[in-house]
Amino acid sequence: MSTCIPVDGGVTAPQGFKAAGVHAGLKQSGLDMAMIVSERPAAMAGVFTTNKVQGATVKLCRERLNGRRGQALVVNSKNANACTGEQGRRDAEQMATLTAQALNLDAGLVFVASTGVIGVPMPMDKISAGIAKAAASLSAQGGADAMRAIMTTDTAEKQVAIEFEADGRTVRLGGMAKGAGMIEPNMATMLAFLTTDAEVEPDALQTALSRAVSQSFNKITVDGDQSCNDTVLVMANGMAGNRALNPGHPDWPVFTSALNRATLDLALMIARDGEGATKFVTVRVCGAASDADARQIARSVANSLLVKTSWFGEDPNWGRIIDAAGYSGADLREDLVDIRFDNLTCVRNGCLAPGTSLKDLEAVLKQKEFSVNIDLKLGDGADTVYTCDCSLDYVRINSDYTT
Amino acid sequence: MSTCIPVDGGVTAPQGFKAAGVHAGLKQSGLDMAMIVSERPAAMAGVFTTNKVQGATVKLCRERLNGRRGQALVVNSKNANACTGEQGRRDAEQMATLTAQALNLDAGLVFVASTGVIGVPMPMDKISAGIAKAAASLSAQGGADAMRAIMTTDTAEKQVAIEFEADGRTVRLGGMAKGAGMIEPNMATMLAFLTTDAEVEPDALQTALSRAVSQSFNKITVDGDQSCNDTVLVMANGMAGNRALNPGHPDWPVFTSALNRATLDLALMIARDGEGATKFVTVRVCGAASDADARQIARSVANSLLVKTSWFGEDPNWGRIIDAAGYSGADLREDLVDIRFDNLTCVRNGCLAPGTSLKDLEAVLKQKEFSVNIDLKLGDGADTVYTCDCSLDYVRINSDYTT
Repeated sequence: MSTCIPVDGGVTAPQGFKAAGVHAGLKQSGLDMAMIVSERPAAMAGVFTTNKVQGATVKLCRERLNGRRGQALVVNSKNANACTGEQGRRDAEQMATLTAQALNLDAGLVFVASTGVIGVPMPMDKISAGIAKAAASLSAQGGADAMRAIMTTDTAEKQVAIEFEADGRTVRLGGMAKGAGMIEPNMATMLAFLTTDAEVEPDALQTALSRAVSQSFNKITVDGDQSCNDTVLVMANGMAGNRALNPGHPDWPVFTSALNRATLDLALMIARDGEGATKFVTVRVCGAASDADARQIARSVANSLLVKTSWFGEDPNWGRIIDAAGYSGADLREDLVDIRFDNLTCVRNGCLAPGTSLKDLEAVLKQKEFSVNIDLKLGDGADTVYTCDCSLDYVRINSDYTT
Repeated sequence: MSTCIPVDGGVTAPQGFKAAGVHAGLKQSGLDMAMIVSERPAAMAGVFTTNKVQGATVKLCRERLNGRRGQALVVNSKNANACTGEQGRRDAEQMATLTAQALNLDAGLVFVASTGVIGVPMPMDKISAGIAKAAASLSAQGGADAMRAIMTTDTAEKQVAIEFEADGRTVRLGGMAKGAGMIEPNMATMLAFLTTDAEVEPDALQTALSRAVSQSFNKITVDGDQSCNDTVLVMANGMAGNRALNPGHPDWPVFTSALNRATLDLALMIARDGEGATKFVTVRVCGAASDADARQIARSVANSLLVKTSWFGEDPNWGRIIDAAGYSGADLREDLVDIRFDNLTCVRNGCLAPGTSLKDLEAVLKQKEFSVNIDLKLGDGADTVYTCDCSLDYVRINSDYTT
């Protein structure tokens, strides 16, 4: 099996993809509309929010995905086009139609995504001008601009590109993402778009994407708030010239590992860029009665406001951690629980471990990144969640900013 | 049926109860140990945290409640005696034994509660001296001191007393509580102790208390964090001279309404005093497919960090509210949802209601107290949760303070 090598760039790193990021005037300044286009129709797969409230573009993408094919993607930031009713639906369709006209494509091959404020009608005059501008600006170097155009409260750029071989051909997979708040598994307030020049069977592409998302975007949480616009889409245009990849193809493992790596890299970039975050924390649970129980405990700890504020205070407050594990609803026997910060044991069998040095624990918490490891000693269930602390800036950002 | 009249005082308002609050040196300054004693053995009932991690005193109280009788209660703040293993268990028992000796009572009639930092062994020398001091300071005017001695991050005093008649006798019910953070239904990080001079059948007292708690302490949330030490206890010493109250007694309704009112008053005092809170918010859900669904949505909204920070920012951000309703897991049809802030409709059928005035909505949010009312138009399910905003001070308090 060939190996995955990181390369520069993002969604335009693979062959046959152009992209653009332009200022359409939705934000006061800066890029706010993105377009990604494949030279030829591509296999398309997607995963969306499980929120029962869903943005108009999520509904549109879900329907179009039935055809498993797409060629272009248009995205705006600043307005989510969610809770906008029939008008929102028409506006999302209009965005696809305008993009198709500008690019001379079948409108059914255009996908649409929006992120930003909920409940405000789309400013279609600006959107329309933005689409024309983006179509005129497409380039094979446009990936970074497209990525910047979908940022909202993000402070860090999030793109990735990976190279590997399939059938002896050089294949690339690229991706970009946005997200910083309203981040919770299944999924986060996040958009992620991936491109590859591999030829991939559409159903296999969907299976691979769903698995990759479950191990990446569904493992991060910032604030426990799950958005109504979360969208992950991947386009595979086949321009690398390999035989169509599917689980029977010898190079299927390298493709899925590239996809898994790209999605996990993007997901961790989101968790690291959590709104106001000063710490990146990995919460690992093992020894649970089941994987589901491990996940429930990891999420309960990762979303506990008291735990997150203690991390911000660089306080090795294991009491709040065991408390949050205790109310998660999962099986737990207090007198069996062990907790480590990185490799430093502080709780053994539910009590402060003998010889625990508060000073050493504090040194772990003072790092920008550390892990909390919880062993329940009940069974084989395990899971990991990536998260961040809750700082004064989180509250500042979210009491000032209307999403 | 006689009526309930609020009167001054707290746990020593009923006949035959003495209390004390003393400084035992657990806190650097201020009262930190409380004692409440009945002149004679009383019927006793209790409700405790459902957290699977439980403080030593919770375990002790649960066992002693099998006897349904008690006469004294000793409580310390600053140390939770939780996650302290066998030593913690012995310390809790020792607190009961020392109290029994000081008061010349059967140790099995002494109940114990602790609140404060998790995982730190009890300083039994200070506790022991504090018990002696409290026993020597008991008085029929000691209710307020006892209440002050159980406060931790509380900024407001929380006590209540109610008078009513049973069998023509004047009966009183008093109560005190502490709690401000780690507050979540089932139950909050909270202690509440109630006393009454009514004669009440022990099993009936337990039933009445469980119902009262479900409609009061289980309806509040500050941060979604549920503590391992939550305890509500009620003592009924029968000194008012009425015939024993039970559901067949004509004055049972007035007794239960007094108990319901006292617990709800104390619960609302806790929600109003939420750590760092600047707003007190009532979240009402109606039209849900079931009461359980209504509860799930009300809690999802009340615990959403993005919703709570928007309230702090006085931003009528209904998008975050409908988003949190959507991910609660409960049944919801986006195109049916109505939302009002107080009486002002802002969402009708999932979209911004025509004619909504942002200025009017902002005026509602600028109040210290307001309600969020969500109608799902699916069925008859309804529930209400009382909560507060999440402010910069919440983060300041909880990143500085080790609980």
